[in-house]
Amino acid sequence: MKKKSIGVGLIGLGVVGSGVARVLASKAEVLAEQAGCPLVLKRAKVLEADLAKPLAKEMGLKFFTTDADEFFAEPDIDIVVEAIGGEMPALDYLKRAITGGKHVVTSNKEVIAKHGAQLFALAQQQGVGVHYEASVGGGIPLISPFQHDLVANRISGIYAIINGTTNYILTRMAREGTDFPSALKRAQELGYAEADPRNDIEGIDATYKLAILASLAFHYQVQPRDIHCEGISRLDSLDFKYARELGYAIKLLAIGKQADNLIEVRVHPVFIPEESLLAKVDGVYNGILVEGDLVGRVLFYGEGAGALPTSSAVIADVVSAARDIVTGAGSRARWWLEPGKKIKPMAELETRYYLRLNVADRPGVLAQVAKVLGEQKISISSVIQKAADSVAQTAEIVIMTHPAKEAAMQPALGELERLAVVKAISNFIRVEA
Amino acid sequence: MKKKSIGVGLIGLGVVGSGVARVLASKAEVLAEQAGCPLVLKRAKVLEADLAKPLAKEMGLKFFTTDADEFFAEPDIDIVVEAIGGEMPALDYLKRAITGGKHVVTSNKEVIAKHGAQLFALAQQQGVGVHYEASVGGGIPLISPFQHDLVANRISGIYAIINGTTNYILTRMAREGTDFPSALKRAQELGYAEADPRNDIEGIDATYKLAILASLAFHYQVQPRDIHCEGISRLDSLDFKYARELGYAIKLLAIGKQADNLIEVRVHPVFIPEESLLAKVDGVYNGILVEGDLVGRVLFYGEGAGALPTSSAVIADVVSAARDIVTGAGSRARWWLEPGKKIKPMAELETRYYLRLNVADRPGVLAQVAKVLGEQKISISSVIQKAADSVAQTAEIVIMTHPAKEAAMQPALGELERLAVVKAISNFIRVEA
Repeated sequence: MKKKSIGVGLIGLGVVGSGVARVLASKAEVLAEQAGCPLVLKRAKVLEADLAKPLAKEMGLKFFTTDADEFFAEPDIDIVVEAIGGEMPALDYLKRAITGGKHVVTSNKEVIAKHGAQLFALAQQQGVGVHYEASVGGGIPLISPFQHDLVANRISGIYAIINGTTNYILTRMAREGTDFPSALKRAQELGYAEADPRNDIEGIDATYKLAILASLAFHYQVQPRDIHCEGISRLDSLDFKYARELGYAIKLLAIGKQADNLIEVRVHPVFIPEESLLAKVDGVYNGILVEGDLVGRVLFYGEGAGALPTSSAVIADVVSAARDIVTGAGSRARWWLEPGKKIKPMAELETRYYLRLNVADRPGVLAQVAKVLGEQKISISSVIQKAADSVAQTAEIVIMTHPAKEAAMQPALGELERLAVVKAISNFIRVEA
Repeated sequence: MKKKSIGVGLIGLGVVGSGVARVLASKAEVLAEQAGCPLVLKRAKVLEADLAKPLAKEMGLKFFTTDADEFFAEPDIDIVVEAIGGEMPALDYLKRAITGGKHVVTSNKEVIAKHGAQLFALAQQQGVGVHYEASVGGGIPLISPFQHDLVANRISGIYAIINGTTNYILTRMAREGTDFPSALKRAQELGYAEADPRNDIEGIDATYKLAILASLAFHYQVQPRDIHCEGISRLDSLDFKYARELGYAIKLLAIGKQADNLIEVRVHPVFIPEESLLAKVDGVYNGILVEGDLVGRVLFYGEGAGALPTSSAVIADVVSAARDIVTGAGSRARWWLEPGKKIKPMAELETRYYLRLNVADRPGVLAQVAKVLGEQKISISSVIQKAADSVAQTAEIVIMTHPAKEAAMQPALGELERLAVVKAISNFIRVEA
């Protein structure tokens, strides 16, 4: 199909939507070269409040509509860019666009993580593409590598720092010895964390992204609810101190592994060796390490969020959709599931653990702790007894275990908590080698 | 065009060719899913000597031919994989395949660097694709990100460790204080360096790869001969010692920059800050940092060579070509040049320099050296006078300069060499911040 131009429709005029509108205008010439045809922004569906924004005035108000029906009635739109985020009404808009035979581009991790399979199936029926590079890792190529560059690989592992907010907080805690509340406050002041930061700090955002990557990598529909998730709020500056002494960094990792048709997916803080490359991924940057049987280990690194990096990915997707239209290729990326796979129960996880216990400062305590662990067949790799608090008559014990089953560790933690000499299980963190 | 299967023809049964043949066979099922159609290896053009290889016997000798005419007469080949390397006859084979209407996939950096433009033009006429992901960085996605994911960006810089052999040698020299000859010897024993290592250690291999990346990134046909190239053989263990003292690592970097339509391309050893991510890319690994106006800095990291990683990239290209055939898209990647650009002369380079001088151990020497640099308007950032050799009555001076023009530094080096008090310019290395 030889077209004179390709029409783009935009939903949303927030950070991402505004960035996309600006780039489509300012780079029209080079994008036309890339796409093989001019890309013309035809219409935008926005909220009432968006109409007051300077960009809306620059572009001309007749360009905008607050009415979804009017937007979807526009005949010259070939590609719909959804940039509003959140589950609803984004899902409805995407379905409506696909059903109307339009290619869609979205930066919406929640919708893709929860409803991707449904959208891909609908798009396949309609012969259009669903593009979502911007949903994970901002401008870092991730979806595209899984869909194209790594297709010959059986992926065995994904180890990803994919939430910039938490990585910024952890970096500050590690570098400056800050406690969690003040590092969070600083992140909020800088605009790296939202006023209500729960989605980031509790790991929820990372589960959406991991669900997307793991589904692509393992050819199994991983749902966010399948993912074991723990946030970073229970980390203490002491944990960073001991981690460093032991040669580790602490990161919030999104981990996906595949072995024997069992898929392991979890998001939680981990100890990783401080000389590993992932340990060097600091601040708001993201780093995603992928292990494949052919390619070995590859790492992708960059800014995981922000208007410009996210626009970079959205526009790349728009160009890709445009090439599919220009070449008449329909949708090119393939989505299929391999049968016989299932999620590995968290209880079957086997890993090393770091334990920090606040105990009574008196002889025989370590023996009691060791006995509880031993009864669960958890063997200790090293113990550090830390300076005691002479007023409270307590001491701190830091334990690194050998690999142990989560099914053994959880009851052991329960037992430890019941010991009279254990004042508190101050923390326990899994170790990823 | 609905096809029952897609025929692949293979040229070469070396490390890469054998890897590709094995993967096509062992992963037939998953590759058929990915391509949308089975991929069938139809015929291989090999050398007489290859027929004795175990793989040739496994696959059946009738499958092979040593006769190029017979290979190209095979009607059922849709995609030709060229895996022989070197300029000739690879270039002829690729042209012949393209002219015959076949898509081509190659891992041949030399042919693409020197003759890419010609092949792309020919392929465009024929409506087929030239795929060369495996030509740079083994299985690390690099060509594809430039062709797809980063298309919305104006790329300002590429900073790449893209030769595993030299990076292995430099890593050993840095970690173990080894001198260059023994580090090279060790690399040869491990199979990381060839018996004749010049292509790697003189930086030539890196210029081919940089020519490919820079051409893609800057939309200008960069030829290998445009690239200023220096190898690593003049590096001494002392340079690593001083680099560490000053807070730097030494890497062979392939650097491409674009500003004001001037393109700067060079391959030479550099000092880079030891806390930078590229400084952590060690051993045979490759790391490629790309700077774009939207995406910011992204880094790609992985194994840059080897049968399996390279096969990962070749097969991904085969699948991509197959999708183009299945969807009737012809070639999808676009190749075009932007007018008005030119190569920046090396003399106009402005950078900081590290100088190591062997001088007479007597008063007033530093004043003479400083005077020569001052006359060329090169200002000194720091000087370290190193332990003297009391027998030879010489001392070592290590100088870090402020940013200076190459056009000033080169004559200054000439002047320094002529000073009676300067016994030798032991080394000079550019600094990349």
